[in-house]
Amino acid sequence: MEKEISQAVIRRMPRYYRYLGELIDSGIERISSNDLSARMNVTASQIRQDLNNFGGFGQQGYGYNVNNLYEEIGKILGLNEEHNIIIVGAGNLGQALANYIEFEKFGFLIIALFDINPDLKDSTVRGIPVFMSEELDDFVRRKRVDIAALTIPRAKADTMANHLVDLGVPAIWNFANVDLELSDKNVMVENVHLSDSLMQLSYNIVKNKKEKKTG
Amino acid sequence: MEKEISQAVIRRMPRYYRYLGELIDSGIERISSNDLSARMNVTASQIRQDLNNFGGFGQQGYGYNVNNLYEEIGKILGLNEEHNIIIVGAGNLGQALANYIEFEKFGFLIIALFDINPDLKDSTVRGIPVFMSEELDDFVRRKRVDIAALTIPRAKADTMANHLVDLGVPAIWNFANVDLELSDKNVMVENVHLSDSLMQLSYNIVKNKKEKKTG
Repeated sequence: MEKEISQAVIRRMPRYYRYLGELIDSGIERISSNDLSARMNVTASQIRQDLNNFGGFGQQGYGYNVNNLYEEIGKILGLNEEHNIIIVGAGNLGQALANYIEFEKFGFLIIALFDINPDLKDSTVRGIPVFMSEELDDFVRRKRVDIAALTIPRAKADTMANHLVDLGVPAIWNFANVDLELSDKNVMVENVHLSDSLMQLSYNIVKNKKEKKTG
Repeated sequence: MEKEISQAVIRRMPRYYRYLGELIDSGIERISSNDLSARMNVTASQIRQDLNNFGGFGQQGYGYNVNNLYEEIGKILGLNEEHNIIIVGAGNLGQALANYIEFEKFGFLIIALFDINPDLKDSTVRGIPVFMSEELDDFVRRKRVDIAALTIPRAKADTMANHLVDLGVPAIWNFANVDLELSDKNVMVENVHLSDSLMQLSYNIVKNKKEKKTG
């Protein structure tokens, strides 16, 4: 079995990927770990350690080949495969996600939205069909669904998430403001807790104000 | 000056707050750190350590008074003050945020949206006015703006963020898929990188598939 790589390392990989993408956009073909480190505000040794988890990729005295590293990290992140996403909850947030075309660039295809609102029946968002909730089970059984984005109120999130898990959906992208309690611990969950990030901002705003007063 | 509290601790506080809110909703008035720990999947000693940063709040042999702790953490997070938010970029995501009423419950008031699209002139989202970008400077000078949510394309995000900083906005809630480079390092930034969280999911999906094959 492969060495277990910590989620902290995994969390940094998309950031490397993003920076390398920006370097490619600006025509930069190679970069030293020091330069990459200065741009990313991470120590060079951290970068080397992180990448060594996957076998390195740097060359002594040359640094990193930007295109090559971008591609390798893409593979590590599974971006060389397509991932089918359904969005459960076609309200504003669900529709915003469906309209976000950047995801497709990385191989994430939104293939359907689901909602309980009959007004949305037979509608589409950027060409993507909105189905009624009754059609969900059948859809998931017929199509390969890799990720279900949950954009429904928190009161219903747990029940729906567990239902999706029972249907065999392997990953939940949770936008409901609740930590899901899933019956199957192997299912992957990524939370986007918007209120949490606002609260971190407000903590720091209040703290800064206090420091200005006393400082 | 007060002791500096690490951002890792701060990142956990909204989660405590959310859990305590759920306890209140289910009518629970007091809880031991062990029970809280079991529910939150955090060690009891971590909880005690985190809360001790702010003076404790627990009582030997009693545990925590849920309402009291909820209120205290709310104060720590600055939720007893109102925070005015503007949303720069009134596309789908901007409108989704404006429609999200949960934020108000925590004292975050969305007071305006801004966009360059003339079709949106004089429109509103849930009663909140959408202004044209030309009106931004004047608005920020006249009103207190605590947080600017950036929901514009990444190519324009850096320029706009620095412009907002120049206007005196103390905090940026960044949804553009780029790490902002700000001229003023005292400005607070919270990033919501949606693609990053999708990539973490896809890494884990691919890894699980591999393990199933080989395991």
